[in-house]
Amino acid sequence: MLPPKQNFSEWFHEIIQQAEIMDIRYPVKGLYVWCPFGFKLRQLVYSKLRELLDRDHDEVYFPALIPETELGKEGEHIKGFEDEVFWVTHGGLEPLDVKLALRPTSETAMYPIFKLWIRSHADLPLKVYQIVNTFRYETKHTRPLIRLREITSFKEAHTAHRNYEEAEEQVREAVKLYKEFYDFLAVPYLIFRRPDWDKFPGADYTIAFDTIMPDGRTLQIGTVHHLADNFAKTFDIKYETPDGGHAYVHQTCYGISERCIASLISIHGDDLGLILPFEVAPIQIVIIPILYKGKETQVEELSRRLFEKLKGYGYRVLLDDSDERPGAKYYKWELKGVPIRFEIGPKEAEKGDVVVSFRDEKKKFSISFDEVTKERIERWAEELKQRLRNRAIEMAKSKIGFFDDLDDLANWIERRGVGLIYLCGSTECGEVVEEKAKGSVLGMFEEIPDWLEGFEYRGRCIVCGEEGYLTGVAKTY
Amino acid sequence: MLPPKQNFSEWFHEIIQQAEIMDIRYPVKGLYVWCPFGFKLRQLVYSKLRELLDRDHDEVYFPALIPETELGKEGEHIKGFEDEVFWVTHGGLEPLDVKLALRPTSETAMYPIFKLWIRSHADLPLKVYQIVNTFRYETKHTRPLIRLREITSFKEAHTAHRNYEEAEEQVREAVKLYKEFYDFLAVPYLIFRRPDWDKFPGADYTIAFDTIMPDGRTLQIGTVHHLADNFAKTFDIKYETPDGGHAYVHQTCYGISERCIASLISIHGDDLGLILPFEVAPIQIVIIPILYKGKETQVEELSRRLFEKLKGYGYRVLLDDSDERPGAKYYKWELKGVPIRFEIGPKEAEKGDVVVSFRDEKKKFSISFDEVTKERIERWAEELKQRLRNRAIEMAKSKIGFFDDLDDLANWIERRGVGLIYLCGSTECGEVVEEKAKGSVLGMFEEIPDWLEGFEYRGRCIVCGEEGYLTGVAKTY
Repeated sequence: MLPPKQNFSEWFHEIIQQAEIMDIRYPVKGLYVWCPFGFKLRQLVYSKLRELLDRDHDEVYFPALIPETELGKEGEHIKGFEDEVFWVTHGGLEPLDVKLALRPTSETAMYPIFKLWIRSHADLPLKVYQIVNTFRYETKHTRPLIRLREITSFKEAHTAHRNYEEAEEQVREAVKLYKEFYDFLAVPYLIFRRPDWDKFPGADYTIAFDTIMPDGRTLQIGTVHHLADNFAKTFDIKYETPDGGHAYVHQTCYGISERCIASLISIHGDDLGLILPFEVAPIQIVIIPILYKGKETQVEELSRRLFEKLKGYGYRVLLDDSDERPGAKYYKWELKGVPIRFEIGPKEAEKGDVVVSFRDEKKKFSISFDEVTKERIERWAEELKQRLRNRAIEMAKSKIGFFDDLDDLANWIERRGVGLIYLCGSTECGEVVEEKAKGSVLGMFEEIPDWLEGFEYRGRCIVCGEEGYLTGVAKTY
Repeated sequence: MLPPKQNFSEWFHEIIQQAEIMDIRYPVKGLYVWCPFGFKLRQLVYSKLRELLDRDHDEVYFPALIPETELGKEGEHIKGFEDEVFWVTHGGLEPLDVKLALRPTSETAMYPIFKLWIRSHADLPLKVYQIVNTFRYETKHTRPLIRLREITSFKEAHTAHRNYEEAEEQVREAVKLYKEFYDFLAVPYLIFRRPDWDKFPGADYTIAFDTIMPDGRTLQIGTVHHLADNFAKTFDIKYETPDGGHAYVHQTCYGISERCIASLISIHGDDLGLILPFEVAPIQIVIIPILYKGKETQVEELSRRLFEKLKGYGYRVLLDDSDERPGAKYYKWELKGVPIRFEIGPKEAEKGDVVVSFRDEKKKFSISFDEVTKERIERWAEELKQRLRNRAIEMAKSKIGFFDDLDDLANWIERRGVGLIYLCGSTECGEVVEEKAKGSVLGMFEEIPDWLEGFEYRGRCIVCGEEGYLTGVAKTY
């Protein structure tokens, strides 16, 4: 049995194991094992991410080991990472001449090579991505999928452009891609421009996607960085302009990790287990024959026919004809988040009917075997996703409140979720807010979602009274 | 221009770069970058490998970092790897309490968890695999795809069974899978049982696939290990037998790395570049319009129609309507190994014909647009593969000779390839052979390929005259 989702932290801890997403018993802090079921979910989610990026990015692979000399070149960047880099210092029993960092992210692995790949304006834009393991020496409390020492599934894209504006255009493109990705997962997000003190080390600015977890804390599930020519200057990445001059490229990078799976699980799941959108469910449909003595044949036959039909449509379908009781089967497949369940008992078999139910709803209904068509299943899948999306948005809305008083703000983010305030954006006022509200300034809204109506973008700063912008504050993962 | 393939080492070095498989300019020895084109080839080859394994293995992911305490548990295993393990000793600026090894292979990461997964005979067989980066501190000459410090694409499968015999059955299954894989790539192989002194550290025995490279040295492109209960005893992996007793599992593991890509490139390529089987070619078909002034429209129209038709069939097709000369285009796509080329000039366009040629043949021929059907292309693809296979087998045969004199053997393996001898299998006689022939004993044939006729499996040992077995000797990569 799962703990109730209201106790979110325990629920998450348990569902990861009980639904066989990961095995958390690996004997090193912050490292976990992807189980077969979890890995299938990962593959399905990441194949969507690949599909989106493959539209106009090339997939590549750069080494996992970065020499200290390269990692240290960009001053801000290394300052941001030096406390959390794992260092390889020995090969066999010998010390290495140059220490090697396990990539915490790949700017400093890629950009020395970008310098070689980029010669002329005709080589731009350059857009590549890779899906790789990255490493962070996390000293805080670690947690599967959320805070890891080995991020096993980091999708990082890196692009180079002719100037600041074209890079900024790419930032907008990346934000659009990420919106499409999270809309596909029916996971709601808030898009903020991170305050200067919280941007990516070495970036000009950082746009971040945050989702609101059931306990009200936000989880950063994607970031898009405008790097301007900061790294280009460090790594000397120049191109020949059409008129024969030379200019530094402007760059962007943007990343999504397995936190996308954490959000998918956390936002949609319930007391019974996972609830997965149809497209990414490792098992999309389960068929459960209800057998009574003497009437097995008809039930088994119809179940088998339904199985073959659904398989023929190309779905990931499972016919559970094991010896367990139906109740035990319901429990098991609900835990695994199977979106559509068919039951067939003697009564149904006789009439050529099947009973349908959806993972997110209590009700059941009967339809005839012939009415089970590909079109109908696609429609059910779409309706399921729409319900998940609506439910998730309602949840998110219930956790967002507006405040013009810092004590009320503190109270809200302690108990509920994201507090919205007006903030001028100065570091001083930001510090006051973070201290008083005991939370993090997520940043100004980069765009206000459709579903969050009735907020003006501009107002008076809650601290100094100067002109301010609508800004999120929350406790964060 | 490529160096002639006869100078294999330079040819390989150059083709990797010129065909844009990898960028070899990464600033750490033994680490290379997969370029977009190379990475597509990798994905296509590995999706076949996944398809084969997915038949009855589950894909998983285990951490890349292994604590020293686990890695050191199996005595033989650690002895085999201690000189080539990269050690992570620091997180940030702090030394770690327990050093972490970058996985050289994952037995010691997986098996402590297998102990938890396996309770009863009903949990067996357990068959999982993962495709991951592994690390070896190579001190010898490194080389892209062949000898690496980061093996980026190690497919390692691990299985557990009830007893020695069932594990042995799995060894045979794995050998069959690997045969299917390399047959698919049209890469010929010799299958040896490695001599005891060269088996996998901790294994009962090792079966290896070797291919013969153009310079006559063999490249190990796959290994299958019977681990018996050696690791089970170390990691205490027991199961409850049907009669309520407890027994250790018996295990196997088997791996293939990106050396499969090295063999694919090396065996089939020629002086002009890559030659790729149709199924794994990132670009399967290229269409080159031959434009003459005033007659462009018809040519462009037919080219476009052909492109749409082939795309409609689902092929990876490219219409090269760039401004380069046709000769430059031929050169470029030959280098990239595109299997099928269509050319369309004004004469063809008028008649509704297209000119076809295949990457591995000089000849060209015309057929009508309508004759270009999916069936015909599939047949061409199959015929191409058959030609590649035949050519590769002829090459392999020309590099294999039988010897009953050690000086002749030494001479052969120095200049040509694999020498076959009879050997009793004792370490002493093996050492004599290795010393005199200046090569490695690859082992007894596990099975003699169909295409290698006329050899008896048994004969008198070339050293001691006792009963011996047909054994390969060669210089190896």
